[in-house]
Amino acid sequence: MNSFGRIFQVQILGESHGVGAGVVIDGCPAGIPLTEKEFEADISRRRAGAKGTTPRVEADLPEFMSGVFDGKTTGAPLTIFFKNMNTRSGDYANLVASPRPGHADYTGRIKYGGFNDYRGGGHFSARLTVAIVAAGVVAKKILKGIQVESKVISVGGSTDIDVALDKAIADHNSIGGIVECTAKGLPVGLGEPFWDSIESVLSHAVFAIPATKGIEFGSGFASAAMTGLEHNDNIIDDRGTTESNFAGGINGGISNGNELVFRIATKPTSSIAKPQQTMNFEKGKVDELLINGRHDACVALRVPSILEAMTAMVLADFMLLEQKAARVYN
Amino acid sequence: MNSFGRIFQVQILGESHGVGAGVVIDGCPAGIPLTEKEFEADISRRRAGAKGTTPRVEADLPEFMSGVFDGKTTGAPLTIFFKNMNTRSGDYANLVASPRPGHADYTGRIKYGGFNDYRGGGHFSARLTVAIVAAGVVAKKILKGIQVESKVISVGGSTDIDVALDKAIADHNSIGGIVECTAKGLPVGLGEPFWDSIESVLSHAVFAIPATKGIEFGSGFASAAMTGLEHNDNIIDDRGTTESNFAGGINGGISNGNELVFRIATKPTSSIAKPQQTMNFEKGKVDELLINGRHDACVALRVPSILEAMTAMVLADFMLLEQKAARVYN
Amino acid sequence: MNSFGRIFQVQILGESHGVGAGVVIDGCPAGIPLTEKEFEADISRRRAGAKGTTPRVEADLPEFMSGVFDGKTTGAPLTIFFKNMNTRSGDYANLVASPRPGHADYTGRIKYGGFNDYRGGGHFSARLTVAIVAAGVVAKKILKGIQVESKVISVGGSTDIDVALDKAIADHNSIGGIVECTAKGLPVGLGEPFWDSIESVLSHAVFAIPATKGIEFGSGFASAAMTGLEHNDNIIDDRGTTESNFAGGINGGISNGNELVFRIATKPTSSIAKPQQTMNFEKGKVDELLINGRHDACVALRVPSILEAMTAMVLADFMLLEQKAARVYN
Amino acid sequence: MNSFGRIFQVQILGESHGVGAGVVIDGCPAGIPLTEKEFEADISRRRAGAKGTTPRVEADLPEFMSGVFDGKTTGAPLTIFFKNMNTRSGDYANLVASPRPGHADYTGRIKYGGFNDYRGGGHFSARLTVAIVAAGVVAKKILKGIQVESKVISVGGSTDIDVALDKAIADHNSIGGIVECTAKGLPVGLGEPFWDSIESVLSHAVFAIPATKGIEFGSGFASAAMTGLEHNDNIIDDRGTTESNFAGGINGGISNGNELVFRIATKPTSSIAKPQQTMNFEKGKVDELLINGRHDACVALRVPSILEAMTAMVLADFMLLEQKAARVYN
Repeated sequence: MNSFGRIFQVQILGESHGVGAGVVIDGCPAGIPLTEKEFEADISRRRAGAKGTTPRVEADLPEFMSGVFDGKTTGAPLTIFFKNMNTRSGDYANLVASPRPGHADYTGRIKYGGFNDYRGGGHFSARLTVAIVAAGVVAKKILKGIQVESKVISVGGSTDIDVALDKAIADHNSIGGIVECTAKGLPVGLGEPFWDSIESVLSHAVFAIPATKGIEFGSGFASAAMTGLEHNDNIIDDRGTTESNFAGGINGGISNGNELVFRIATKPTSSIAKPQQTMNFEKGKVDELLINGRHDACVALRVPSILEAMTAMVLADFMLLEQKAARVYN
Repeated sequence: MNSFGRIFQVQILGESHGVGAGVVIDGCPAGIPLTEKEFEADISRRRAGAKGTTPRVEADLPEFMSGVFDGKTTGAPLTIFFKNMNTRSGDYANLVASPRPGHADYTGRIKYGGFNDYRGGGHFSARLTVAIVAAGVVAKKILKGIQVESKVISVGGSTDIDVALDKAIADHNSIGGIVECTAKGLPVGLGEPFWDSIESVLSHAVFAIPATKGIEFGSGFASAAMTGLEHNDNIIDDRGTTESNFAGGINGGISNGNELVFRIATKPTSSIAKPQQTMNFEKGKVDELLINGRHDACVALRVPSILEAMTAMVLADFMLLEQKAARVYN
Repeated sequence: MNSFGRIFQVQILGESHGVGAGVVIDGCPAGIPLTEKEFEADISRRRAGAKGTTPRVEADLPEFMSGVFDGKTTGAPLTIFFKNMNTRSGDYANLVASPRPGHADYTGRIKYGGFNDYRGGGHFSARLTVAIVAAGVVAKKILKGIQVESKVISVGGSTDIDVALDKAIADHNSIGGIVECTAKGLPVGLGEPFWDSIESVLSHAVFAIPATKGIEFGSGFASAAMTGLEHNDNIIDDRGTTESNFAGGINGGISNGNELVFRIATKPTSSIAKPQQTMNFEKGKVDELLINGRHDACVALRVPSILEAMTAMVLADFMLLEQKAARVYN
Repeated sequence: MNSFGRIFQVQILGESHGVGAGVVIDGCPAGIPLTEKEFEADISRRRAGAKGTTPRVEADLPEFMSGVFDGKTTGAPLTIFFKNMNTRSGDYANLVASPRPGHADYTGRIKYGGFNDYRGGGHFSARLTVAIVAAGVVAKKILKGIQVESKVISVGGSTDIDVALDKAIADHNSIGGIVECTAKGLPVGLGEPFWDSIESVLSHAVFAIPATKGIEFGSGFASAAMTGLEHNDNIIDDRGTTESNFAGGINGGISNGNELVFRIATKPTSSIAKPQQTMNFEKGKVDELLINGRHDACVALRVPSILEAMTAMVLADFMLLEQKAARVYN
């Protein structure tokens, strides 16, 4: 379903070439100051236009449809909507017959019996991540004293990001990347044993970011080649500080007070300017497909603000949940 | 919270050194034949006793506490319980003062204000995965015609598993590993766009398996170094078959009918026989800790049956959800 | 929280004097034809303007913000929004100091620390029921072959409704009423034992209708004075038809195939034109309050279309849930 | 589904003539002292044996299967189980052919395709309310300073309860009743606008009590015959105290700090010793049914402890939820 979170619940709606994209946040505390202006910084980080990103640029002005009064949240559902301005639906006409490799065109068609809005990926589009970024702006306000930061650490297998990008653009091709996210200042005790470990809930949210192929916490996949003696993080003081941080700030699914660290793998953008082979359902045979439209050479470049937003949402929800454990009984 | 799934809901309960471990499955269809005997195969695959696994061996006989009548499921909540037999709680007495590196001793103590059952990890213990395996046995019965399989593909960085294990045992150390899981025969259309993509829901479940540090689907982290032209899986027939399978059987979060493939990284067992340094809260300083008890040299070896069970649970839930879309309106 | 339903999930948002009121429906099947025109009939039944209802009349034109493409639902979240046109916020200025008796002014202020939008009741306002009616229009389309109908059966204790209304209007007072709802054509088997009985889920939804003070199914409160021999409905054929229908179409929380029947009590509108006594928080003492604004003499008159909508939503959700039981295993 | 609550989540399991009945409570705070002895008082109030109740008496000793350590809750799922001791399944053999009027025999059979445990009503049995009472004992511990009380106020239409009972027993018949519940000491602000009003959530829980036909808050159905001027509760001090309490302690779905008051209608026990007419599915025609077994003449007599438990559960959940709003941001 299209909502996420237990207290701070986020619902995403909209389509790439429909009226717009939006978010409804339920469970947001009352009294948080909120102005349209505060969304600019994170939304412009997500926005396209820089080298390696699509030339489709949206102004992305947030409209508060509900839940804000006199410049503050009211405690009622908070709705933020972004109208689509810059759409060219004609670009996608030939995709009805020929599902694009790597996209949800084929799976969406089968799942929804052909009724899905196929234009620009419809509800599957990365366009909807603008709504996630907006939810993140609100979530960050709840996370006072906690710093969530995310950055690209490699693209196309290289840490020289400029060079790798130039090559992909020159080749009319696309490349993947690795994006890291950290959170400092977390209290000990967020997360639940078993189903709602921090890793479980964060990974659930993070795989909603289009193009994500993997996630790892702390030592991650490298841990498989390590020994216990190497990997164990010795505790060196009574606040739980550890010498190393292979755990990535989590033990038993629960924050241990050290820095939360995780990385995700973003695949290369599926839409490329080169001709590809795919089934043409009109012709009943495999045929060449040329994708028009405007696309990112490296979608990983736009991930950091989205990944921060997702992380902030998850942590805000854990913080609000933990408050209740600040405890009726004792 | 301790339940998972939207239709086929699984709740895990119990402790390592308490009465036992169990599972309550809500939403299980009525009429599924179920006998205690059918649990033997998967449970013995999980069970310890082989080289590289702990000498604590439990008989693990399932007791049906509710939801089974005349050898079939009734549609009411199905409760399966495993009594603990072979516990030695004395082994854990010194852990109250000295939280073990890599374990949830410290985080559990802080989160629950010291009231958690610390013996053998309590509710955090891998002991509870016996209940997961039991849920998987039931889930697999719902997945007619779908084969879920899992295997260890490397330990300690090596595919020569025997050699790597022997070395770890000789060193009184532990090692990590990589475990792969596949599912064949899935229909197109399982999963939801955005929050409940197959990757989101599977990763949520999988990170509940103790010691998991990462997950990747299809090409996974390798995709970050690939180009779009390499990575795109061309569709070659009208059933959606793809030439390559870098997607791991998923597009836009939704199954595409090709094989589902993913891998997880399991860290080295945290409990090792070698002395370690950790904060001693009684003495108020870092001190040597020697862990008694019985442990796995490589916990990854016990993961495959658990990983299959988790995957089967998630897929069974998606199958039951999708049925409803088989569709009232059309 | 502000969403309801397990498959057909309905989230309500908006305020009486804000931008508008809306509904997001998640889990709506794809392919349902839907035009703005189809909302007219039910929305005009809810609309004010007739004798005994407020003179605040809104045009109530639904805008599809997401989830509709080419005149059909897409399977993605369906958002329907109603802009507020006819608001006079000045009418409510004195309510900040003096909470209106019978309203949520005082509870809302305390719950949200004074940050709630108090104008016209804000998020507590009956204005939001326009969004419920819209959700009902969609739900009814899923309920093919099932007729949901609701009507006022008494107001102010009288079945001569016109006379009772005239008196209330002449007195500058308001009156309550009883509203009945029935559903014909339900299959046997909707609902769940224990927590999600039809009565449980319907009553949960129905008490979201402002001013509802009670609900009873079939014989209802009269059953308390009956004997078992009188009350038991004898089954007279193999389709489960019963001779009497004191059960109201439900046994053990599950539909029995007979007509579903229930009634609700709607209290008299709290806003009346007569002066009342209430605490004035500015003056720090009880003082006279005169409520301006435009109000219903009998809000029960506007309940039938809302009650039908709630009932349709709940039944549509049960139908979609039951489909899944149509059954993977057998 | 078989769980209820957002933070304090209660899952009910078991059958009337199976292994037993139990409850799993997830989200229970850690550190609550809990002994088997503390369950005696409420469980013996629910227990049968007094005039007008079934002669089937169970010892009802609670077993803690998980979540308790050293006499205190641990924060992990708390499982309490009651073994069935005194069952006579032979009593129910003829019910396979002849569904009992007023019971879930017919609906259960159709819903579960004949696989339900029909003995004594199986999972539909009032036997499971022992688990609810147990959950209530735990919930009441969370509600420090809040008194939840419930009592029968009439049976068979009479407040002379002894006389009415004697007559029903002499007639081999059964009678219904009205049960009232109150809660004193609630803070202002529990409950949510719209879907999760106190009335919505309480009624959801209360209709899970077998034989419940109606619920009303404060003035309830009588409000339908009242005027606004009569019904409005004037606020008379700055703590929100009202002069009258027709609201039953709730405005806009949210507790107003005055006494919470509601009543439910319990139908006459469906099982009676007199012969009844019902469809005999073996014979294919309506035939006489004589119900053996042991039954209550007035099941309402056993409702108070169950109703208190349900109310305590719901209020405990609201209290734990509200804690989180005690508020991260401000």
